[in-house]
Amino acid sequence: MSKIKTRLLGKAESLAGPVRAAISALEPQLIADVSKVGFGDPNVIPLWYGESDLPTPEFIRRAAKEALDQGETFYTYTRGTPPLRAAIAEYLTGLHERPVAMERVSLTTAGMNAIMLMMELTLERGDNAVTVTPLWPNAAAAARIMGAEPREVPLGREQGRWRLDLDRLFAACDSRTRLVFVNSPGNPTGWMMTREEQRAVLDFCRERNIWLLADEVYSRIVYHGRAAPSFLDIAEPDDPLFVANSFSKAWAMTGWRMGWVVAPAALGDTIAELVQHNVSGVATFLQPAAVTALKEGEPFVKEFVERCRRGRDIVADQLAAMPRVRFTPPEAAFYAFFEVEGVDDSLAFAKRLVREAGVGLAPGAAFGKGGEGGYLRLCFAQAPELLARAMERLKRVIV
Amino acid sequence: MSKIKTRLLGKAESLAGPVRAAISALEPQLIADVSKVGFGDPNVIPLWYGESDLPTPEFIRRAAKEALDQGETFYTYTRGTPPLRAAIAEYLTGLHERPVAMERVSLTTAGMNAIMLMMELTLERGDNAVTVTPLWPNAAAAARIMGAEPREVPLGREQGRWRLDLDRLFAACDSRTRLVFVNSPGNPTGWMMTREEQRAVLDFCRERNIWLLADEVYSRIVYHGRAAPSFLDIAEPDDPLFVANSFSKAWAMTGWRMGWVVAPAALGDTIAELVQHNVSGVATFLQPAAVTALKEGEPFVKEFVERCRRGRDIVADQLAAMPRVRFTPPEAAFYAFFEVEGVDDSLAFAKRLVREAGVGLAPGAAFGKGGEGGYLRLCFAQAPELLARAMERLKRVIV
Repeated sequence: MSKIKTRLLGKAESLAGPVRAAISALEPQLIADVSKVGFGDPNVIPLWYGESDLPTPEFIRRAAKEALDQGETFYTYTRGTPPLRAAIAEYLTGLHERPVAMERVSLTTAGMNAIMLMMELTLERGDNAVTVTPLWPNAAAAARIMGAEPREVPLGREQGRWRLDLDRLFAACDSRTRLVFVNSPGNPTGWMMTREEQRAVLDFCRERNIWLLADEVYSRIVYHGRAAPSFLDIAEPDDPLFVANSFSKAWAMTGWRMGWVVAPAALGDTIAELVQHNVSGVATFLQPAAVTALKEGEPFVKEFVERCRRGRDIVADQLAAMPRVRFTPPEAAFYAFFEVEGVDDSLAFAKRLVREAGVGLAPGAAFGKGGEGGYLRLCFAQAPELLARAMERLKRVIV
Repeated sequence: MSKIKTRLLGKAESLAGPVRAAISALEPQLIADVSKVGFGDPNVIPLWYGESDLPTPEFIRRAAKEALDQGETFYTYTRGTPPLRAAIAEYLTGLHERPVAMERVSLTTAGMNAIMLMMELTLERGDNAVTVTPLWPNAAAAARIMGAEPREVPLGREQGRWRLDLDRLFAACDSRTRLVFVNSPGNPTGWMMTREEQRAVLDFCRERNIWLLADEVYSRIVYHGRAAPSFLDIAEPDDPLFVANSFSKAWAMTGWRMGWVVAPAALGDTIAELVQHNVSGVATFLQPAAVTALKEGEPFVKEFVERCRRGRDIVADQLAAMPRVRFTPPEAAFYAFFEVEGVDDSLAFAKRLVREAGVGLAPGAAFGKGGEGGYLRLCFAQAPELLARAMERLKRVIV
C-alpha cells in the first residue's frame, strides 16, 4: 500500500503528507458544525446563515429565463459582459461620490471569489493580511490558502458600539503585510466605518504600499441613508484599493454566485488571467439578470431594507427583555450579534439552542477575536412572524 | 504619489511590486491574442475556441427555468446538492468499469475550477507539476498561480500519431513533484492514453506518492466506443488520483460553468473548505439542469459525437488535399491539430488567417512544448456547412 493511501486511510492529521500543510490546517466551519445539529429538522428556525427567507424577485429570475430561451449558453467575456460591467459602473457611480469607470470593474463568481482572487494576486507564502474582527471566517481562510497569515485586529466596544482602534490596526502592519482587509458594514457586528476612519486607513495604505481590500457586500443594508460610507466615495482610480461586492445580499441572490470587484484599471488584464484560471468566468445567461437587478432593483432594495429594519426592531425589543443579553441594535447589515452573560462556550451554547429552543444561531467563536465568550449571531433578514416565533423560543432558554 | 501608484501607472513589468511575481509573470492568452484580430467581425468563421456552435439542448435549459420558477435561489450544499452528486456517481459508475461512490464526487465551478482547487490542495511554492503537452494552457497557469513550476513533457509523433514516452514522463518527476497532470483525450491533440499507459502512470504515482490529476473533460467525445479509457476504470477509491470533468463539452454547456472532481472520499471535507473559500459553490438552480443532462442526455451526447465525426471527416478530407499540411485525424476530442510546412510562427500565421482567410484558428504556440512551429488548432464541433466554407477559405491561403 502506498504512502498516500496509508495516510488517507488514517486520521485527518495524517493527510498532511500529500496535502499542503496550510490546507490540512484549515479549521472546520463552526456555523456548519452547529447547523448539522438541526439539519433537515423542519421544527428548527434557521437564523444561522447570512441569507434572507425571500427568494430572488421574479423580475430578476425572468431575465435569466429569457436569456436561456435565447440560447445564451456559450462562453462569454472572462471579466463579465460589457453591458453588465457598464451597469455595475453606472450603479456605483450613481451611489457614491466619485465616478467608477467600467475598466475598473470585473465580474466574479460571488463576492467570495472576488476576495480569493485578490488574495491570489497579492499574498505570497509568509506574507500577512491584517483583518478587522469579529469577521465572517472565509476571508481569513482565503489568506491561509495562499500560505499567508491572517492577523486579527479586534474591534473594541464603547458604550455598546463596536469601534476600531486605528492605532492598533496600523501597529499590526509590518514589512510582510501586503493587505488590510476591512468589512464595513461588518458581518457579524453591523459595525460601520466612518468617512474619517476610511480616509485614515486609505492614507495609511497609500503611504505604506499596502493593498486595502474592502468587502462592501452590505453597503446597501443601512438604516439611515441610501448606502454606507464606501472607500469608493474617497478613492482615486489608481489607489491601492480593491472593493469587493456581491449581488447576494441587497437583491436576495445568494444562490446565484455573482459578485464583482473594483480594482485599478491597470490590473484588468491580470485579473482576467486570474478569473480565467480559477473559474473562467460567470455563467453567461445569469449576467442579463444581474443587469436587471441593478437597473430595476431599487424598489426591491428599499423594501428589503425596510423589512430588515422591522426584523431588527422585533429582535432588539425581545433581546432587551432578556436580562442576561447585552445588545445594541446595529445601524447596518442584517445581523444581531449579541452577548449572553454567563456563557463562555458559544459553540456549545448554539448547539444547545438548536436542541432546546429549536432556533439555529451562529456561534460567536466562528468570527475570530472579539467574538469569543458568549456571542451569538442571529440573521434578522426574515419574515416578522418567523422572528417573533424564534424570539419567543429563545426567551424560554436564555433566562 | 505612493509607490504602488507609481508602479501601476508605469509599464506592465513595474506592477511586480504590489502584485506577486508569479502573477505578473503569467503569459497572455495567445488564443485571445488571435481572436482580438477578428473580434466582432461577422465575416470571420470562429473555430478558435473549444466550443460547439450548438446551444445547450432545450430539455436541459428547461430544467434550470423550472428551478428558477420554484424559487431555488438560496444557498445550497458547498460540494453540490446530494441528488446531483448521486447522479454524477451513477453516471460514472455506468460508464466505467469500477463503481464511483458519491462521497468521492464534488461539484465545481467548471472543470477549470476543479483543476485549480486540486492545485491549491497540493502545490506549495517551489513544487513542480509535470504536464503532458501540447496541452491547453490553463492547467500550467493554475500551477504557476500556486507558485509551482509546470514541467512540460512533450508527446512525440510516430507514424502521424501522438505518443507518450513513459520513461521521459517518469524521468521528469523529482522530489519536488507533487502532481502529474494528464489530459486524455487531449486538447489540442486528440491524443488518447491506452489502458496500459494509464496503469503504468497510476502505478508510478502510487509508488512515488505523487498525485495524478486527470483531466477527462473529453471522455465522451470518442469515435469508437462509448467513452475513452479512464483512470476511473482501473483506480481504487483511495488512490492518489483526482479526475476532473465538466458539463461543457459533451452536453454543450460551456456557458454554464459546471464541472466536477472525483477524489478520495477522505478529502471530502477538505475539498468542501476549498470550494467554500474560493466560490462557495455552484448556483443552486443550475444543479437540477445538470441532473437532467446526466439522466436524459445520452441521446444528445450520441448525436453530438456523430456531428463531431462528420465535422472531423470534412476537415480531414480538405486538409488531406493541402500539400503543405500534415495531419492525422484524431480518435477523440473535437480538434484538428495540424502542422503547416514552412510556417515557424504559428501566432503570426493564425493572425494572417483571420485577416486573409476570415477563419479563426488557435495557434500551436498556445499549447506549450510539442506544439511549436507551424501547428494550428481548429475546432470541428460545428455545423458541416460552416466547416466546408471555412475549409474552402483556408485552402486559398494555405497553398
